[in-house]
Formats: sequence, C-alpha cells, structure tokens
Amino acid sequence: MTQGERMPRTVLHPVRPRGVRQELQRLAERGAIELVVAGSDDEVAAALAEGAQVLVSFRWQERFLTPSLRWVASISAGFEQFPLTRLREQGVALTTASGVNAVPVAEHAMALLLACSRRIDEAVQHQRERRWEQQGPRLELEGSTLAIVGMGAIGERVAELGHAFGMRVLGVKRDPLAYAGCAEAVVAPDGLLEVCAEADVLIGALPGGAATRGLLDAEVFDALDGGWFVNVGRGSTVDEAALVAALESGRVAGAGLDVVAEEPLAPTSVLWSMPGVVITPHVAGLSPAYGRRFAELFTRNLAAYEGTAAWTNRVV
Amino acid sequence: MTQGERMPRTVLHPVRPRGVRQELQRLAERGAIELVVAGSDDEVAAALAEGAQVLVSFRWQERFLTPSLRWVASISAGFEQFPLTRLREQGVALTTASGVNAVPVAEHAMALLLACSRRIDEAVQHQRERRWEQQGPRLELEGSTLAIVGMGAIGERVAELGHAFGMRVLGVKRDPLAYAGCAEAVVAPDGLLEVCAEADVLIGALPGGAATRGLLDAEVFDALDGGWFVNVGRGSTVDEAALVAALESGRVAGAGLDVVAEEPLAPTSVLWSMPGVVITPHVAGLSPAYGRRFAELFTRNLAAYEGTAAWTNRVV
Repeated sequence: MTQGERMPRTVLHPVRPRGVRQELQRLAERGAIELVVAGSDDEVAAALAEGAQVLVSFRWQERFLTPSLRWVASISAGFEQFPLTRLREQGVALTTASGVNAVPVAEHAMALLLACSRRIDEAVQHQRERRWEQQGPRLELEGSTLAIVGMGAIGERVAELGHAFGMRVLGVKRDPLAYAGCAEAVVAPDGLLEVCAEADVLIGALPGGAATRGLLDAEVFDALDGGWFVNVGRGSTVDEAALVAALESGRVAGAGLDVVAEEPLAPTSVLWSMPGVVITPHVAGLSPAYGRRFAELFTRNLAAYEGTAAWTNRVV
Repeated sequence: MTQGERMPRTVLHPVRPRGVRQELQRLAERGAIELVVAGSDDEVAAALAEGAQVLVSFRWQERFLTPSLRWVASISAGFEQFPLTRLREQGVALTTASGVNAVPVAEHAMALLLACSRRIDEAVQHQRERRWEQQGPRLELEGSTLAIVGMGAIGERVAELGHAFGMRVLGVKRDPLAYAGCAEAVVAPDGLLEVCAEADVLIGALPGGAATRGLLDAEVFDALDGGWFVNVGRGSTVDEAALVAALESGRVAGAGLDVVAEEPLAPTSVLWSMPGVVITPHVAGLSPAYGRRFAELFTRNLAAYEGTAAWTNRVV
C-alpha cells in the first residue's frame, strides 16, 4: 500500500453541518486521512483536480468528477443531486449520511407529538398572558395507536420511542418483508389507508423526491378521522391544501409540522395560526452530535474504502 | 357470606376525578359493589351512618368514621388527610391511589423536557409572529444524563422513558436498597448533590409533605451547573426563590414546571416570563384513562377486602 492509499486525501465542501469539520480534523490528526478544508467550490474542484480521492459534500458539480475521485461521502440522507450513472461508470463509490440524524429527528417528532397531546402550545400562550387554566390532555400516548409512514432509520427510531410510551406501532414501508424492527405490523404502501384508519397519530418520516410527492393526501387525512399528524419527513410528501382542509373540518385534530411544502413558510400561510398546529422551522435534524455521528459513519466507510470492512449506506 | 359481605356498600365522595363515577357504576352493574354516589359531605356521612362499609374519597371528615366503615379507598396518592392511628384502632383499611397517575405524569414530564430541549416554547412564540427562525436544540436527550428525585411509580415511569431516549438514568430514593427498576444507579437522599452534579437534567417527582419541603434548594441547583430542571412532583419540594436565582444566574439553564409553591401561580410571579421556563397549570396527572386505572386498582383491592387477594397500596 502506498502512502496515498493509507491516507486518502479528503476534500471537505464548505457547506456542511456544524461539527463535521472538527471531527474530520480529529481523524486527520490521528493520521486516518489527509484533510483539505475547502473554502469554496473552486477550492473543492482544485483539490480534486490535484489528486484528492475522497469528497465529503452535500453538493455536486460536474467538475468534481476528476480522474482521482474514488468516493463521494454525502452529508445528506438523499442522493438526488448526484449523477449515479456516471459515478458508477467511473467506479466512484457514493455513500449517503442516511440515519445520521435519526436520533435528533425522532426526538423532535416526539417533542411535536407531546406538545400537541399535552397542550404545550396552549400553555406557552397562556404563560404570556399569566393565565393558569387547567385542561386535560388532548390525547394520552399510552394505549393509543401510532402509524409511521416511512420506516427508514428515522421511522424505526420513532417506532422505538412510541413503543416505549406504550403506543401500538404500525408502519408503512416500500418493502415490508425486509422489516425486522419493533413495530407490531408493517405493511406495503397500498395498506396506507387501512393503517391510518386505525391510527390516533400519523407520523410522516418519508424522504423527498418524485416517488413520495403528495403521498399524504385528502384520502389519508380522511382515514385519520380525528387523529393527529406529525411531519418530520419532507413537506413535499404532503398535499398541503388537503391538510389545511382536513384541519379545518376536524378530520385531522391538529398537527406538529417541522417541514412544509415551501420553506420558509410564507408569512401569509393559514397554517401559522390554525388551532392545534405547532410549527417548527425544519430543525428536527439539528444536533450537537451531528459531527460525531457523521464521523463514526465516515470512519466505518473509510475501512470499507480501504477494503477491510463492508460499506454502510453505499448507493453506487 | 351474607349478601352485604358479597356486595360491599360503597360511598363515592362528590369530589373526584372524571371517569371514576362511570367506572364504579360499571362495577355496580356487574354486581361487584352496591354504589352510593353522594352529592355532598352530608350524603357521604349519612350513607356511612346507615351501614356503608367502603368509602372512596380524596377528602376526610371526622364523622365519616362510623362503626360500619371497613375500608377507605383514597383517590389521592398521598394520605396526610387521614387519621391513621384512629383508622388502625378501629380496624379500618386505608389504601391510596399511588401510581394511578404515573403514566400521564411521566408523559407530561417528557413533554416539558422535550419542549425545553427542542425549543418548542420559542417555536410557539415565533409562530404567533409568523417567523421562521432556525436554531439547534438546547440539549439532545440521547447520551445525556437524567437524575430523578423520587423513584416512586412516577419516577420509575420517567426512568423508563428517559432510558428509551438513550439517557443515562440516575435516581434518588429514600430506600435505594429496595430498588429494582431500570435506572443505572439509585442512591439515598444524602447522594442528591453528587447525582445532580452528573446530571444534564433533573426531574423532580417527589410527594409533598414535611419530609420533602424545600429539598430542592440552592445547593441542588448549584450542583446542576447549567442543567435543566423539570418538576412534576409538588411545588412545596422546591425552594422557589433559590430556583429563580439559579435561573437568573444560569446555574439552571431553564425549567419545565407543572407545579409551583403556590397554586395558581400569582400573576405577579417572575417565573411566568423567565426565558427557558415553560409553565403548565398542574395538569400532569390529568388523563382520559384515570377512571379506568383507578377502577383496576379498586377491583384488585376489592378482592383483597374480600380476602381472596393481597392488598395494593395499603397504608393502614
């Protein structure tokens, strides 16, 4: 093995979550990689033109595909931005950061659900008015039924937490036969309406993209029939006009939304002021531990890159 | 066995949580008890004077202690209001409802903690202003340390939930040797400061009364050293002036308070408007399932009363 193979030269894109740079610098200090912290797209392209083998990046540009590039470690869960065919043709590996934010996103999903169920939104408003006004919860999680659409790493973590609260957990997953988690039952997408009809709470944890666009529509909200909705997936997965109509009619009792169709949510949106709706500004994935978790995944895949372990999250 | 022994005449006090009357009426319809739903203290006293054997009540009055009374099933977790010595002398059993509200109180504790950690309070205020302002969480539960003071039924349920979130759970309990739950370590009250020094979050789940008055004081909040505080026990367990000072100095980062020293909280209290403080109006124990859970406990103890099972929560 040459020195270059033992210490792959790794370029870090300037757009990255907090903590990733520090953790990769730690790996560099330990001699695991040679790190180039780029300050611009031009610096990324230059480092790759000069022989860097690894790119750590959210973003993609045509000119990043240099002869030396061997592995793209994406910092996002999705991979729509990358040219899969061309990477494959040139023998470049692509891995995603899927699962890295499962813990904070699931914590946030439960924060939104409990804010709705235990009336935290009302309490905060009453607090401003110095009003002490007792009311029972809108829902008790224990003994209620939770449906999760999208049983990836996030959905599974939400399932574990729901289970701990004593909820009956049902899931919807593209490939239910491959499921081996803690949900009581997991069905294929054609069972979505049946699962919603049983649910007191529906939590969306779907990725974006064409395959999931508008999947959570009027029929789904109708089937929910007075239940609660939480979305920590992507806003594009919801027919937002249908959601607003369902909230107005009471078919959906209320909602905790970390994502919406167009972000930032327009100041004119009716969602801001609907009773029983709690909105957070797409922050579910933010975490002080993001850098550490990404570096753990990166270190595992570094071993795979060096041929001593299996890949995790490899797409190409 | 006489008819009277098979169907104990049971008086229900007019002050009672929602759902208890319906559930006891169901027991009466099934022939398990003969039920008198009293509309006033006078009606309670009259029924007991006329031979009722069982009293289901929060409240106590001297005249309730009639020759026929054999069992007081309290609807509260505490029992300071009852004359223990006189009940014992007359051979009257006393049971509490301890544990009946553990599930909703623990859900509420997690709702308050997650509201603080994931900035739900800020989000609700920004929502009123239609502001989309991204900020990371104040704390991630996974990997942090949770100290619980008071490891009764509520504390233990909080421990289970904290554990599910990946928190390290430490407990403080009067009799730690008798502990057999899921916390990693449980210490006696003299270890309180050490446990707080390790904790990112302190959750109070103590009962009221002389033994716990002001237990959570300046020393405790100093030891917490920038951690978070949640109280779902009793307001009397906190030195509230010390808490306010600790919040002002940042020794306590913020707090979720369902209970305060004097309830309702005075409109003039500084707590209402302190940043990072979320106040709910003593609603943690409210639950649509209270009646059902109380009736389950009452039914178990009815079997004990009839000599066919062991008592639960018997104090005298």
